[in-house]
Amino acid sequence: MLIVMRTDASQDQIAAIVNRVEIHGLIAHLSHGEERTVIGVVGDGRPYQYHEQFLHLPGVERIVPISPPYKLASRDFIPENSHFPIDGIEIGGPGVVIIAGPCSVESREQILEVAQAVREAGAHALRGGAYKPRTSPYSFQGLGEKGLQYLAEARQATGLPIVTEVMSTEQVQVIAEYADVLQIGARNMHNYSLLHGAGASQHPILLKRGMAATIEELLMAAEYILSHSNRRVILCERGIRTFETTTRNTTDINAIPVLKALTHLPVILDPSHSTGNWQYVEAVARAGIAAGADGLIIEVHNNPAEALSDGGQSLRPERFATLVCQVKAIAEAIDRTVASNENSHPPLSIPAEVGS
Amino acid sequence: MLIVMRTDASQDQIAAIVNRVEIHGLIAHLSHGEERTVIGVVGDGRPYQYHEQFLHLPGVERIVPISPPYKLASRDFIPENSHFPIDGIEIGGPGVVIIAGPCSVESREQILEVAQAVREAGAHALRGGAYKPRTSPYSFQGLGEKGLQYLAEARQATGLPIVTEVMSTEQVQVIAEYADVLQIGARNMHNYSLLHGAGASQHPILLKRGMAATIEELLMAAEYILSHSNRRVILCERGIRTFETTTRNTTDINAIPVLKALTHLPVILDPSHSTGNWQYVEAVARAGIAAGADGLIIEVHNNPAEALSDGGQSLRPERFATLVCQVKAIAEAIDRTVASNENSHPPLSIPAEVGS
Amino acid sequence: MLIVMRTDASQDQIAAIVNRVEIHGLIAHLSHGEERTVIGVVGDGRPYQYHEQFLHLPGVERIVPISPPYKLASRDFIPENSHFPIDGIEIGGPGVVIIAGPCSVESREQILEVAQAVREAGAHALRGGAYKPRTSPYSFQGLGEKGLQYLAEARQATGLPIVTEVMSTEQVQVIAEYADVLQIGARNMHNYSLLHGAGASQHPILLKRGMAATIEELLMAAEYILSHSNRRVILCERGIRTFETTTRNTTDINAIPVLKALTHLPVILDPSHSTGNWQYVEAVARAGIAAGADGLIIEVHNNPAEALSDGGQSLRPERFATLVCQVKAIAEAIDRTVASNENSHPPLSIPAEVGS
Amino acid sequence: MLIVMRTDASQDQIAAIVNRVEIHGLIAHLSHGEERTVIGVVGDGRPYQYHEQFLHLPGVERIVPISPPYKLASRDFIPENSHFPIDGIEIGGPGVVIIAGPCSVESREQILEVAQAVREAGAHALRGGAYKPRTSPYSFQGLGEKGLQYLAEARQATGLPIVTEVMSTEQVQVIAEYADVLQIGARNMHNYSLLHGAGASQHPILLKRGMAATIEELLMAAEYILSHSNRRVILCERGIRTFETTTRNTTDINAIPVLKALTHLPVILDPSHSTGNWQYVEAVARAGIAAGADGLIIEVHNNPAEALSDGGQSLRPERFATLVCQVKAIAEAIDRTVASNENSHPPLSIPAEVGS
Repeated sequence: MLIVMRTDASQDQIAAIVNRVEIHGLIAHLSHGEERTVIGVVGDGRPYQYHEQFLHLPGVERIVPISPPYKLASRDFIPENSHFPIDGIEIGGPGVVIIAGPCSVESREQILEVAQAVREAGAHALRGGAYKPRTSPYSFQGLGEKGLQYLAEARQATGLPIVTEVMSTEQVQVIAEYADVLQIGARNMHNYSLLHGAGASQHPILLKRGMAATIEELLMAAEYILSHSNRRVILCERGIRTFETTTRNTTDINAIPVLKALTHLPVILDPSHSTGNWQYVEAVARAGIAAGADGLIIEVHNNPAEALSDGGQSLRPERFATLVCQVKAIAEAIDRTVASNENSHPPLSIPAEVGS
Repeated sequence: MLIVMRTDASQDQIAAIVNRVEIHGLIAHLSHGEERTVIGVVGDGRPYQYHEQFLHLPGVERIVPISPPYKLASRDFIPENSHFPIDGIEIGGPGVVIIAGPCSVESREQILEVAQAVREAGAHALRGGAYKPRTSPYSFQGLGEKGLQYLAEARQATGLPIVTEVMSTEQVQVIAEYADVLQIGARNMHNYSLLHGAGASQHPILLKRGMAATIEELLMAAEYILSHSNRRVILCERGIRTFETTTRNTTDINAIPVLKALTHLPVILDPSHSTGNWQYVEAVARAGIAAGADGLIIEVHNNPAEALSDGGQSLRPERFATLVCQVKAIAEAIDRTVASNENSHPPLSIPAEVGS
Repeated sequence: MLIVMRTDASQDQIAAIVNRVEIHGLIAHLSHGEERTVIGVVGDGRPYQYHEQFLHLPGVERIVPISPPYKLASRDFIPENSHFPIDGIEIGGPGVVIIAGPCSVESREQILEVAQAVREAGAHALRGGAYKPRTSPYSFQGLGEKGLQYLAEARQATGLPIVTEVMSTEQVQVIAEYADVLQIGARNMHNYSLLHGAGASQHPILLKRGMAATIEELLMAAEYILSHSNRRVILCERGIRTFETTTRNTTDINAIPVLKALTHLPVILDPSHSTGNWQYVEAVARAGIAAGADGLIIEVHNNPAEALSDGGQSLRPERFATLVCQVKAIAEAIDRTVASNENSHPPLSIPAEVGS
Repeated sequence: MLIVMRTDASQDQIAAIVNRVEIHGLIAHLSHGEERTVIGVVGDGRPYQYHEQFLHLPGVERIVPISPPYKLASRDFIPENSHFPIDGIEIGGPGVVIIAGPCSVESREQILEVAQAVREAGAHALRGGAYKPRTSPYSFQGLGEKGLQYLAEARQATGLPIVTEVMSTEQVQVIAEYADVLQIGARNMHNYSLLHGAGASQHPILLKRGMAATIEELLMAAEYILSHSNRRVILCERGIRTFETTTRNTTDINAIPVLKALTHLPVILDPSHSTGNWQYVEAVARAGIAAGADGLIIEVHNNPAEALSDGGQSLRPERFATLVCQVKAIAEAIDRTVASNENSHPPLSIPAEVGS
């Protein structure tokens, strides 16, 4: 880090800073400019520990961090792309991965029907919430473990691995029993208890960016998980909160190439939440792949007008099928592919009462 | 709510919407404008349940909510200011309440020394974190239950009630044993499991606004707690995230009069986090009281340059004492007061090895 | 518009509002909900004129606009895509248009060399600033009319039409003599004098979104130009200002499909400004086309490290040529094309001292 | 400035940077950290000229500016508060200055009546727009020079100096004939032609912060004016655009102490625009003074429900009079004053047909 001194800092104040730097076992490099002195601090493996403290010392104007505060998530640490299989589907490699399904699991019939539909359209994994974070305590809060059981049935029926959200540390164990990937939602990106708990489970984690989180903070949240030697972290851009109100969030499409430059972890886009409106999902999904995302997570509902949550941003299965075709075309235009979902475990049997 | 139809919506589409409104047991009022029809929906006690669903119906352009989605927190529901005592200190009444203390409890000596100092300066309650949410997994994470014990000692020594942060549902019980007020931090404002758990404890709750939370979302989070018949909720503005970077956050001073207009709950300001820099804390603290806040929560550290967290935004005790005098002058200018902290439980005994 | 009354509004207050609505020659529709009355106002061709005034009347809680405040820019007004030629190059049709060139015209040699390079790479028009809006009064402010003359030479040499920025009403006439398209920059999107002056020139206008302008405000700015019966307006998304700082701006990729839904005007993307970093320009340019943009405007410099402005976001000609190939592939993947730039006026002669 | 090299930068790349630094006549200081080398550049009086260029050189990760880009506006340059009289009223000194009046001049009667009312309430200067920047081309655009004449009459009648907005360079001369202070509005803060034109007039300038302008950019805009040796610049915080929508803008109250720390120029607050709602104007006005602002500019209208612009944020004269009393109390609480407006030129005569 660098300590920028005030223009009126005295020689004594500078000497006191240098002294304190050395007390911490670090080395100070002075650079005397025309207007102010800058003190470079070397050897500070985790300099963010000291930032705030130096800010209070006499003569200090501000602190400039130099090294990023994350290590394990950094491309400086692991230069090559991380890639790993989720139940046979490789993520982070050349193939683009598509995760799809309803916002919430609402019933056995619903999840089986949607699972079947997205599998036929080409999806590689099934999403669906059993525990739902809702802004209002009066909204549908999810089916809980019953929902997890329905998801397990859907996996058995379609062979699709399951991605579902975990909202608190207590849920980690039960959800890990049913799900292939634990999702940490945008509202919990700063929930450090949960990051620790999910990381310790050694399950693959889909980590969504908080709606006001910087890219650096997203990488710091990933660092919590990685610090448990759990390397299977998928980052997900899902829109940030800005002044623009025609869409629910603003898709930070820049984040795709920026993240791919800063980290080795796979990066996917959630155009359903990043727009909040089904009409814009296809355009933004295509944009995400064109920008270099390793995958998409998309809300699909068989009857959006009856959905218990987020129906307005869900695609109907037939539009989703069209979107998969568009995504394939875009992926090929940039020399990537959308793998066949035949690689997933073969569906065992489809319950008689459901079909399409 | 209102359903705004597209300019090209057909009579059949309008009829289908009306039909669906009535299926839900609601009443539809049609208003045919020159360009488009608007359908008013009446009887929708919890209309936000339906928003998303109507958005998908043919001919619908957008949905406009009319009633606020919160009820128990609303001034429409409870017109008078809510006020309640915290260990003898009234909050929400004419007196302005000042909560002060370090970001983290770092040691027995530190918390006792700071507690003594803020009490002498006139503070009414002591803050201090035993469990800390930290952006980095490598930063100091708090002393845990040992920190709670030190806080209890500080209460015994000074008579000041304790405000401390709870980060997960599992911590609620132990923290409720030691603390007078449970704080839910900005990063957890959307952590619904925690809101439920803290609400159920029946302890007073200090609820901080999330850094990207709208005022409506803050009131919805309060609604979670209030729905447990726990009426003792204190709302706290602590700065929001914007494009401006000279301060860590942007103090939304407008939120003070807006919240006072929308809700009956007490509203306080945290100028330490809302500026992130001790140099600006005094000015913004004064502004908060001038704008009508019911109190302040301020970071004070006996040695900010050695603080293990957030030292850069902490005031030294002597500056805090000056600030309390300024706050008194401002409070009197708007016909409020800063009550004497002699009302708090008398300090029992001050441990021999600590003093000031 | 709708006038939402307070829950405690009296019958007299409601009657007074209705009376005032009728005084304005408008019609009031009442909808009595359980909690509050909503008054629909019909016949208000330009309702935004009245918004503020009703807000002050007793019993009024808030005003909800229903019709968008723009008319001429709206798809409700003109359902089909507007498309028009710029010196032979069609914009707004199936072909994707690429505008490229340096941030500033720095010298005759520089602009001729870059013009030649972008033409060979496939660009359809040449950009370059003769008058520059600069944050600092100490920065290079542009070559002025001399820069316009060099641009004219570059057009003659390459056949590429010229896009250049106009910063004030006085400049409109002289720039209109040299340029094919007048650009109104992000900083001037709210400069209404300039919008009127540029609109009156009857030249095609490239209108950039202000860095904190909503999509609705961008359309209102276009309305200023359209109100001069100047239909040739190209809208440009160039990034908005948000809390994220790893890129200079945040590309609002959602704005592409949203604008295509709301307006008939052509929409292009400026990935150079929307990222502010050449490393991310290619990914975001591809994303823009995938999302449905009608074109791109991209900064290209023959020697970015020597550029007098915005060198850090400029591509070298060889990377730009690669990008054009990528854009073609993406355009084809969504059934669009990148037209050959042979349709532009044939280059007349290339000055002997410049070449590549 | 500092040039931060990539972790994989080679010795040759570092040497090439140093070489280029020296070509510019600057001095390079190297600091070799554990992970990366940082090159301090000394002697760079205007380093922002070079930022972008170095960003393109091989091995460079990013550029960190050290000195602020503004000079004349900085407290480093002029440590003492700048203060100067406006027609006898001192601004920037211990007295708090209150500017009040309608958004727009609508008629002779209106401006005379409001001027009289705000003078009696204690205002020191009269505001009122003759030329109006309006989002919609269909909204009232101001009375133009006729409005200026009415303002001059109001000054004659009340003795209050006049503050009015200038929207383009052509208007500077005529407005300077009538007005005592030229206002540059938020939408024009980045209109550099206008900043030059207004600065050259040598009139006092009230410069409003753009709605998405950083504090640094506001100071850079002031630098444009100061570079014309026009030292009489008043900065005005008027709210910034954020995600919060219950108020039209978010009052950045932090900006008051931050600006007072960074610059010697007087700083005032516009609570009418920063909230956009008359109900919140008083609370935020008080907050501004408590935070250290040197003055206020407030919209007052004799009949807000009939106002042709911004009626919803205007105070009635009687509420404004109450506010002035509150501001006096707050000012005294922080050892400042609100000077009597008897110091202003004595009113000459009040036209017979107007009074109150």
